[in-house]
Amino acid sequence: MSSKASISVVKIGGNVVDNPDALARFLDAFVALPGRKILVHGGGKEATRLSSALGIETTMIDGRRVTGRDTLDVVTMVYAGLVNKRVVAALQARGCTGAIGMSGADAALVTATRRPAEPVDYGFVGDLADDAVDAARLASLLDAGMVPVVCAIMHDGRGTLLNCNADSVAAAMAVGASRIAPTRLVYCFEKDGVLADVDDPSSLIPLIDSEGYPRLRRDGVIAGGMIPKIDNAFAAIGKGVGSVSIINADNLLSNRGTTITR
Amino acid sequence: MSSKASISVVKIGGNVVDNPDALARFLDAFVALPGRKILVHGGGKEATRLSSALGIETTMIDGRRVTGRDTLDVVTMVYAGLVNKRVVAALQARGCTGAIGMSGADAALVTATRRPAEPVDYGFVGDLADDAVDAARLASLLDAGMVPVVCAIMHDGRGTLLNCNADSVAAAMAVGASRIAPTRLVYCFEKDGVLADVDDPSSLIPLIDSEGYPRLRRDGVIAGGMIPKIDNAFAAIGKGVGSVSIINADNLLSNRGTTITR
Repeated sequence: MSSKASISVVKIGGNVVDNPDALARFLDAFVALPGRKILVHGGGKEATRLSSALGIETTMIDGRRVTGRDTLDVVTMVYAGLVNKRVVAALQARGCTGAIGMSGADAALVTATRRPAEPVDYGFVGDLADDAVDAARLASLLDAGMVPVVCAIMHDGRGTLLNCNADSVAAAMAVGASRIAPTRLVYCFEKDGVLADVDDPSSLIPLIDSEGYPRLRRDGVIAGGMIPKIDNAFAAIGKGVGSVSIINADNLLSNRGTTITR
Repeated sequence: MSSKASISVVKIGGNVVDNPDALARFLDAFVALPGRKILVHGGGKEATRLSSALGIETTMIDGRRVTGRDTLDVVTMVYAGLVNKRVVAALQARGCTGAIGMSGADAALVTATRRPAEPVDYGFVGDLADDAVDAARLASLLDAGMVPVVCAIMHDGRGTLLNCNADSVAAAMAVGASRIAPTRLVYCFEKDGVLADVDDPSSLIPLIDSEGYPRLRRDGVIAGGMIPKIDNAFAAIGKGVGSVSIINADNLLSNRGTTITR
């Protein structure tokens, strides 16, 4: 863990992965991003399309994919194979020769724990503990000039692959990276950030800190599905991550959007 | 390229990949193999099965898969996703924590050239030049304690993935590794080696050298499909590889089989 140059962990979701133009613009910006960096990507709709073509039923519970043996094969093929290698090849074409596609199993970078079958049996779905990422291994990859491109397929260290949530993988990578050097975590999606009024782009909330957050919740400015996301951001900050940004994928270099800090 | 500890490049074919028991036995031996090592794997029948399930026609010409856009997606999913991550997770479970799954695009390890469309248009199929492998990058991975697990999906450096022959990938990896340290190349398959009589296991030819090979060909002891394999072995030796073994996957540690040397 020699160098202290800061680290950016950037996560892109399925809506960016699924849109070739948006993905190309994002990758241009990612390559231009200074400093050491890690890209975490979601899977997009390709896994659902492949499942459907193979006659495998897709079951989602609370937004999480129930992952039986056949579905595990599908998400491993799509996330760790198709999407990951497409992104890596596109980064190579942009001169980012350090780009290296990884699942959690590769170099034992991230070890997950299979979720208990009670109260809901999600199958081969994993969760990540605070020490899920091997920070020494991550440091040696970054020191060698690598730019890890990480999908959400993890392993349990005993030979079983596990499907994880890509937002959680990004948070775990950032917590692990923060043991090496100052780290920021950036969630890129198709909106401009956290909006006070979902239908009004001008209602962007540029900064949320731990002092202001309770008031924003009390006043109902932040509600619904945004609450767990921001709770998770504060959890990552509590574990050492410097800041968490929630931004439009097109604003990676300006970092314009919502930034969450201590 | 600091260390000079010798390197083994081991290739397993589809028949080992497709057989869970044979694969488990092989991986036990691979983990026990001393020294620095690289595993190259074929894809097995899974790609043909997936193509068939998706209604994509599989066309083979001279044993090579014609790789249109849809087939490229299939082999990327199966080789770089399903097979690669299964093998890596199984190596991790055996304590080989340095195991890291890679395509040629990852860390720009191997760059291929798309095969010309004349005389036969194979689609997204690549060939490997003598300098296809970035030896400096390979050295830095090995120096970091990594055990590359390489599938036959390569890239052209300009964003296009290419389907390559796994035997050729193994030979190219060995030629690249030989620029770092003394390297041997081991082809593992389901037979015991080069047999003078295909139907008689006791007719194993333990050693072929450049002096004896012309005689074995002249006498018809080595004929047919074995000739290009052995020609390729001598070509790798001519480019710096110390020896090439053709052995049963169960004999990795004893190296019993056929060894080809200068």
